[in-house]
Amino acid sequence: MTTVGILGGGQLARMLALSGAPLGLRFLVMDTAADACAGQFVPMVVGDYRDEAALAEFASRVDVATFDFENVPAESAQWLSERVPVFPNPRALGVAQDRLAEKTLFRELGIPVPDFADIATRAALDEGISRIGVPCILKTRRLGYDGKGQFRIKSAADVDAAWQALGAQAQTVGLILEAFVPFERELSVVAVRSRDGEFRAWPLTENWHVDGVLSASLAPAQASSELADTAFGYARKLAEALDYVGVFALELFCRDGQLLANELAPRVHNSGHWTIEGAETSQFENHLRAVLGLPLGDTRMLGHACMLNWVGELPDAAPVLREPGGHWHDYGKSPRAGRKVGHATLRADSAEGITRALRRVGAGLKRESQVDPVVARIAGAL
Amino acid sequence: MTTVGILGGGQLARMLALSGAPLGLRFLVMDTAADACAGQFVPMVVGDYRDEAALAEFASRVDVATFDFENVPAESAQWLSERVPVFPNPRALGVAQDRLAEKTLFRELGIPVPDFADIATRAALDEGISRIGVPCILKTRRLGYDGKGQFRIKSAADVDAAWQALGAQAQTVGLILEAFVPFERELSVVAVRSRDGEFRAWPLTENWHVDGVLSASLAPAQASSELADTAFGYARKLAEALDYVGVFALELFCRDGQLLANELAPRVHNSGHWTIEGAETSQFENHLRAVLGLPLGDTRMLGHACMLNWVGELPDAAPVLREPGGHWHDYGKSPRAGRKVGHATLRADSAEGITRALRRVGAGLKRESQVDPVVARIAGAL
Repeated sequence: MTTVGILGGGQLARMLALSGAPLGLRFLVMDTAADACAGQFVPMVVGDYRDEAALAEFASRVDVATFDFENVPAESAQWLSERVPVFPNPRALGVAQDRLAEKTLFRELGIPVPDFADIATRAALDEGISRIGVPCILKTRRLGYDGKGQFRIKSAADVDAAWQALGAQAQTVGLILEAFVPFERELSVVAVRSRDGEFRAWPLTENWHVDGVLSASLAPAQASSELADTAFGYARKLAEALDYVGVFALELFCRDGQLLANELAPRVHNSGHWTIEGAETSQFENHLRAVLGLPLGDTRMLGHACMLNWVGELPDAAPVLREPGGHWHDYGKSPRAGRKVGHATLRADSAEGITRALRRVGAGLKRESQVDPVVARIAGAL
Repeated sequence: MTTVGILGGGQLARMLALSGAPLGLRFLVMDTAADACAGQFVPMVVGDYRDEAALAEFASRVDVATFDFENVPAESAQWLSERVPVFPNPRALGVAQDRLAEKTLFRELGIPVPDFADIATRAALDEGISRIGVPCILKTRRLGYDGKGQFRIKSAADVDAAWQALGAQAQTVGLILEAFVPFERELSVVAVRSRDGEFRAWPLTENWHVDGVLSASLAPAQASSELADTAFGYARKLAEALDYVGVFALELFCRDGQLLANELAPRVHNSGHWTIEGAETSQFENHLRAVLGLPLGDTRMLGHACMLNWVGELPDAAPVLREPGGHWHDYGKSPRAGRKVGHATLRADSAEGITRALRRVGAGLKRESQVDPVVARIAGAL
């Protein structure tokens, strides 16, 4: 009997556990919140990720550990990895936690990335702005637990305010200045790499965000196979450079037909939720297969799929349940503004079928604004 | 938050819970065994189904109750149904528990059935045999908890031995004499009926048994649409007569192109396990949708599927996991002779694809004898 430990007990851990049960696996999650939603189906250790006693208990009860949350402190991941196998490895986690390390690696690997600069001082900020230009964004290098720490600089007049807001963190978590990219589309590669280096990707996915939170994902993306192959090539290079094991997402901007890497998410990813019903093997099952050294499952699609995220509170389920290809996912969370509480996946044999399903669900839920951008994208490509 | 109670905590309860989690449901199972495998993911009440205190605790913690096990005592089901909604209703459960009531209902509904007779006395047995002929089978009307209670009568010389073995039960659980049908094929309809009477069936399934235990199921069965429509018609009639709510299976014999009803299973069924990956909505999810009064999900297939049962112990998973359409189900049970411990489902876009996958898995596991009958059936139909 193999027990998989998951640091973080949110919906990703919950879906990992539900998809891993048929593989005969047991699970243990660790979370700071006693009501973390994975705990409805699997046992939990409640504790801070920096609490060595809690981590030690967790380590003693699992055979292998992984993450549903990328901001587990790198030292905690390192401490764990000296006691049990941890996938992905702490270095990959560390790179993904640090915007500067991440973008530096993208650039080293020849993966195009929006222009950026390391900002250690006010003088470096001025110099960065003169090189990168405006608009641009000053960000903390790490998210930490405390929020986002971003300041958008629209013109030179904003520089003092930006430094006022974030300058104190230049010598603590560090700062990075990034060019603002007026991209046309956001795409993601969700991919998996096995312990012995096999790489597989699900079809390219297009994503729509509202207020910075994922709203809808369409797979396959309406994109040329050349564009998709370029994206897969970037993801593979990145995975190999990090000796990555498990599922990850590479988020990309697309501008004038060119791809720019935005972010690496070192875990199963919201833009891959459609794989539960829309692919032969889901991202959740393949993450577990990779972490456990089992053969990877097929990543081919079964038709077309669109995922709609439910943020804040769940809408009425009936319009989705009535849809022939409609699948409902309630994470068992209480409602809260900005919180991801569930999603729906619509599956159909064709993109036209997805359009019809989206129109019915959008009308049934009075959520036309959520489905319209996806409908418009499909219509534009037909 | 809705909690679904399940009487019986085996693999059917486990798969119900795993498929119901995305609907936002919680579960509580009741089982006589503290190590029942559903208990690995959901809370349990451990107790005998006749223990009123245990049943009362169970009833107090659930919003609706259903079964993973058809031999829950009818009185317990009735007692429960006076306290919480129970689906399917206790009458349907009662009919399915009593071979005589079941076959009498089949006959009343015009569903062809092997000849049978109610055997209350030794004289009735002699009379039954002279009418039905040999070979035939004397059976207890109810399974009870104690085993099968069957005696095969090959010739008139076996009658005394049959009465010796089972006659004492004629006045307790009752006996039924059934004609022996030398059938060519075993088929099953897995279907669902909603609270408001909507009926849906998954494609007809063909089944192979070894030593009385299901070994393989193929869907869709290699059968004409007329044969399938006849089978669906029988299932619908039966469901309507019983005001059945939830998923059930109707097992059928096929002889000379004619169908004969064998048995009603008033629950999700082993011959419907392929629906997890092979259908738009699984039997498990649709059972829950029906029981909760939610819209039923689409029962269409996604290609072709074959399920292989693992009985006694699990074979090596790798040949299944390496298969592009291979899906593994380990029920988390310890090995024991005759025990269903898991299954695999192979999915492909065509029957030929299923054949190729079965051949590879059969060779990889040295289980050619399990896959060959299915391969031969597909070859015969091509």
